[in-house]
Amino acid sequence: MDNYEVTLKLLLETLQASKAATESKEDKHEISVGISNRHLHLSQKDQNSLFGEGYQMTKLKDLSQPKQYACKETVTICGPNGAIEKVRILGPVRSKTQVEILEGDCYKLGVVTQARLSGDLQGTPGITLVGPKGSVQTTEGLIVAQRHIHMTTEDAMHLGVNDGQIVAIEVSGPRGGIYNNVAIRANDSSALECHIDIEEANAMNVNSLSKIKLIKQKF
Amino acid sequence: MDNYEVTLKLLLETLQASKAATESKEDKHEISVGISNRHLHLSQKDQNSLFGEGYQMTKLKDLSQPKQYACKETVTICGPNGAIEKVRILGPVRSKTQVEILEGDCYKLGVVTQARLSGDLQGTPGITLVGPKGSVQTTEGLIVAQRHIHMTTEDAMHLGVNDGQIVAIEVSGPRGGIYNNVAIRANDSSALECHIDIEEANAMNVNSLSKIKLIKQKF
Repeated sequence: MDNYEVTLKLLLETLQASKAATESKEDKHEISVGISNRHLHLSQKDQNSLFGEGYQMTKLKDLSQPKQYACKETVTICGPNGAIEKVRILGPVRSKTQVEILEGDCYKLGVVTQARLSGDLQGTPGITLVGPKGSVQTTEGLIVAQRHIHMTTEDAMHLGVNDGQIVAIEVSGPRGGIYNNVAIRANDSSALECHIDIEEANAMNVNSLSKIKLIKQKF
Repeated sequence: MDNYEVTLKLLLETLQASKAATESKEDKHEISVGISNRHLHLSQKDQNSLFGEGYQMTKLKDLSQPKQYACKETVTICGPNGAIEKVRILGPVRSKTQVEILEGDCYKLGVVTQARLSGDLQGTPGITLVGPKGSVQTTEGLIVAQRHIHMTTEDAMHLGVNDGQIVAIEVSGPRGGIYNNVAIRANDSSALECHIDIEEANAMNVNSLSKIKLIKQKF
């Protein structure tokens, strides 16, 4: 090739790479949304302390994730500055108690916590739970839920993402925008759904009929 | 110019234009944030009905915008599904009563409204206000505040934006992201500050010490 062809080839490759980067940024996938209010998951031990040995929770309704359900029962959660009543229990029991509150609840309760994924509880603060048969002072497990997208490993393959990958989500509409740091949670017992909390939903006017778009981020 | 030079010039111009567009997209400016909870502005007539003729509000504190202040006084706002007590009044009185609630309050009150800029009240619903001397059923003025950035016309010139322009804002940090549809409100009696409500702040972990970045959007 002469000089002319080499220069032309280089410039065309640069243009194509720039175009590909832009298109990849716009690689979006529509996903249903599940909106969480504050709630908690109890260990068997803590359930016994709050509701009594042998107590059976009453299922209120099934949740979108397989085998997960909301219970009729609620507890009061208490911090140094205040209490929040009627916080919903989700079943079944887990190995560790986990209390998921809203950022706005931190002020009311007088606590400081972090956005964490379910199960990632090391170093998080505890909180006081009060039930009909007693109270429990947990030593950890108080979190604000980090936004995440549940999916099967097949969904993940189809969407071109992996379990644990961090993506962004885009919301359309007059209050729309982009939330960064959304974790992919892919395993074979999940239904495809993006989970955000009620403050995140309200801030962008998302409701249970909304769809969000997955955006793969470049780091 | 021969063919080689013409082609080269065209390709270089295309690359430069593409680079300029990318840089313009990343043109960001750090701005302080003001976070609003639900509040209302009263007309003199409605203030008279709620607090009695000749009543003087007690200033609680000055706000960041010149001549604006929070009053010690509050009212109860009531919708078909419920009431919210202790909603703060901001002074001074305005020509029209304007009640600014959170998206989450809509469910509690049982009302549907829209994100609107202050003063843009046509077609918005009314609400019942209850004060110590009486109640008022407004016919319009119930809004969720559209996020906006106050600034002087000099700030606007410096930032390269105009009054009424729609921009986006970027929030950094582990719960960060981008809010679209942020209106520029430029006039000579404003202090430079981005106003979002408490749900928008909590959703991205913004507090009164946070800075946001202005992003000019391409339409």
